[in-house]
Amino acid sequence: MVSVTDLPTPVAVVDLDVVERNCAHMSERMSRLGTRLRPHVKTHKCVEAALLSVEGHFGGITVSTLAEARAFGAAGFADITYAVPLAPAKAAAAVALGAEVGRLALLVDSDEAADAVAHAGRSAARDVPVYLKLDCGYHRAGVAPDGAVGPRLARRLADARGIEFRGVLAHGGHAYYAAGREAIAVVAAAERDVTVGFAERLRAEGLDVPEVSIGSTPTMAVIDDLSGITEVRPGNYVFFDRYQSAIDSCAPEDCALSVIVTVIGAYPARGTAIVDGGATAFSKDAGATHVSGWDGGYGAVLDAESGADTGLTLASLSQEHGELRGDAAALASLRVGRRLRIVPNHSCLTAALFERFHVARGGDVVGEWRPVRGW
Amino acid sequence: MVSVTDLPTPVAVVDLDVVERNCAHMSERMSRLGTRLRPHVKTHKCVEAALLSVEGHFGGITVSTLAEARAFGAAGFADITYAVPLAPAKAAAAVALGAEVGRLALLVDSDEAADAVAHAGRSAARDVPVYLKLDCGYHRAGVAPDGAVGPRLARRLADARGIEFRGVLAHGGHAYYAAGREAIAVVAAAERDVTVGFAERLRAEGLDVPEVSIGSTPTMAVIDDLSGITEVRPGNYVFFDRYQSAIDSCAPEDCALSVIVTVIGAYPARGTAIVDGGATAFSKDAGATHVSGWDGGYGAVLDAESGADTGLTLASLSQEHGELRGDAAALASLRVGRRLRIVPNHSCLTAALFERFHVARGGDVVGEWRPVRGW
Repeated sequence: MVSVTDLPTPVAVVDLDVVERNCAHMSERMSRLGTRLRPHVKTHKCVEAALLSVEGHFGGITVSTLAEARAFGAAGFADITYAVPLAPAKAAAAVALGAEVGRLALLVDSDEAADAVAHAGRSAARDVPVYLKLDCGYHRAGVAPDGAVGPRLARRLADARGIEFRGVLAHGGHAYYAAGREAIAVVAAAERDVTVGFAERLRAEGLDVPEVSIGSTPTMAVIDDLSGITEVRPGNYVFFDRYQSAIDSCAPEDCALSVIVTVIGAYPARGTAIVDGGATAFSKDAGATHVSGWDGGYGAVLDAESGADTGLTLASLSQEHGELRGDAAALASLRVGRRLRIVPNHSCLTAALFERFHVARGGDVVGEWRPVRGW
Repeated sequence: MVSVTDLPTPVAVVDLDVVERNCAHMSERMSRLGTRLRPHVKTHKCVEAALLSVEGHFGGITVSTLAEARAFGAAGFADITYAVPLAPAKAAAAVALGAEVGRLALLVDSDEAADAVAHAGRSAARDVPVYLKLDCGYHRAGVAPDGAVGPRLARRLADARGIEFRGVLAHGGHAYYAAGREAIAVVAAAERDVTVGFAERLRAEGLDVPEVSIGSTPTMAVIDDLSGITEVRPGNYVFFDRYQSAIDSCAPEDCALSVIVTVIGAYPARGTAIVDGGATAFSKDAGATHVSGWDGGYGAVLDAESGADTGLTLASLSQEHGELRGDAAALASLRVGRRLRIVPNHSCLTAALFERFHVARGGDVVGEWRPVRGW
């Protein structure tokens, strides 16, 4: 049996016990709240993790790229929602892929994308399942919940030949700017209420709105009432990360992905040390900088063996170097060759940098997962 | 012939005319200054680009990972310097790889790494070429130019069986914190003078120091006197990027790598639009934030056809979304489906996110390069 301690660094390690616990917890939570869980796979992009995340639910998943749709479709996932507003030029490819997969639902919030999907659907003699993207307060994408644009576009989707209008989809990404479970709960309630309210507005205008889909990891980790919601789409929770822990949507021990690195330079006179993981191993995501007490680093720096916090900060990253700073005594104890385990700020971006994850239980490598890449 | 305008987005495009010009310019510059160019390949990690970059010089290259050394060695590059301080646990693998490659020189700045290399060299009955890493002012890695540690470690490397001490290697990375060619020139002179001075100090103590190696793209773009330097190792100049342009180590038209994206959402009422390239297409490198007039964005946002600056800012990135902000009229003119060309802040990190680069001349795709990945 290969041990995690034998792996050359930098290496991405997934704690399988933690992934299983995270998946079971979210699955049970959503069953208890009476909604369907359609987990987003964009964080891990691995079939093995997706299979764990759909346990207890209907098997549908959410993806962020057509490459993910293609790969997960080929692996047998037959009910997929592509939850990024569609580029019109991708409509024909997406519709063709949907015919292979089974069901590939698309997301639209513009006339241009609506036209392109309707045209592609008619050309393929299919009614393509489409959601209208709603801005429930995050203000990244989607039609506004008030005003005339949303209902007009919904009506257009409902009336278009080549499209099967499935309903409303929103994402409470502004929960990431919260700090603490109470603040997240406020966003979660707004995500639900704004989205359900918009669906009711469409229904009052005579539209059929079969689906009302919301979800982010923070909001789905705290919400206790999903009345009116038919599906939720959290994804990061499979791995969680230091950001989620900082805003208290998880506990530090729920973080399943870490990167093992080696100290390759020790400079106590300069107050620094360097490790062999840089921006290409962690990403430059600055993390939860809005949270009081956040140390500004790029990951939690733990002892590789014990998992104890070293108190050091991964203060800066260049391409293949990570620079540690912090307490003089902690720095002085670092020898070149020492291995450290770093829990990244943002597991989605860190995971995307690795060709493979070594999957471990209790320090033993029990498998290897290869994430989908590209678009 | 496939046109760049036909490629699905997001897509990384390399302008081959610009790469050839950048390579020829640096090659001629270093020939004129009388030093050997050992280009770093870490930015592009492509054999095709490396072949262009060694033209006019001796064929040696610099790498940042053993994966690069392995791949470029297999492609016929027989003289490689691995210019990151070696993790002791990698010594045996590096020495074995060196035997396959021809010459793989290693970098050391600790007793632990020196011991590991000497042991691996003796075990393989080889004298492994090793440089001592010097801190010439960047303060990331390396022994200090004053004090006793540097000469003691140099002596140890020179005396160790299993090691062939090759000399001193430094990197003036603090040039990245300069703004303007005059400020870069000050760092460049210091990079040269500190490194040559340290080599002289070792020679005065009776050590043979055959090689004195320095180099970063900014410093090598401006320096006019390399007396005492035997080799230089710039690498980013093959692609350059928006950061280099912001500090004036290149002109904007020297940037060879860009990412074509599509507008997938237009929200003029909110003052935003979104494109289908996010943090997984650009990296979250914040760029030259110290330069006066820097707009804080993640890339220069150009029209995909004309290359004209749109004046818009790529203001924030999530995993698969990039958010544009800026002038209301410019935003109002953006239609969903419009293609934009974005010159990334940091080409090394952006390039590392793509499986392949489409290589173009005058808008026609003339090739595809696949970068090395991993460690």
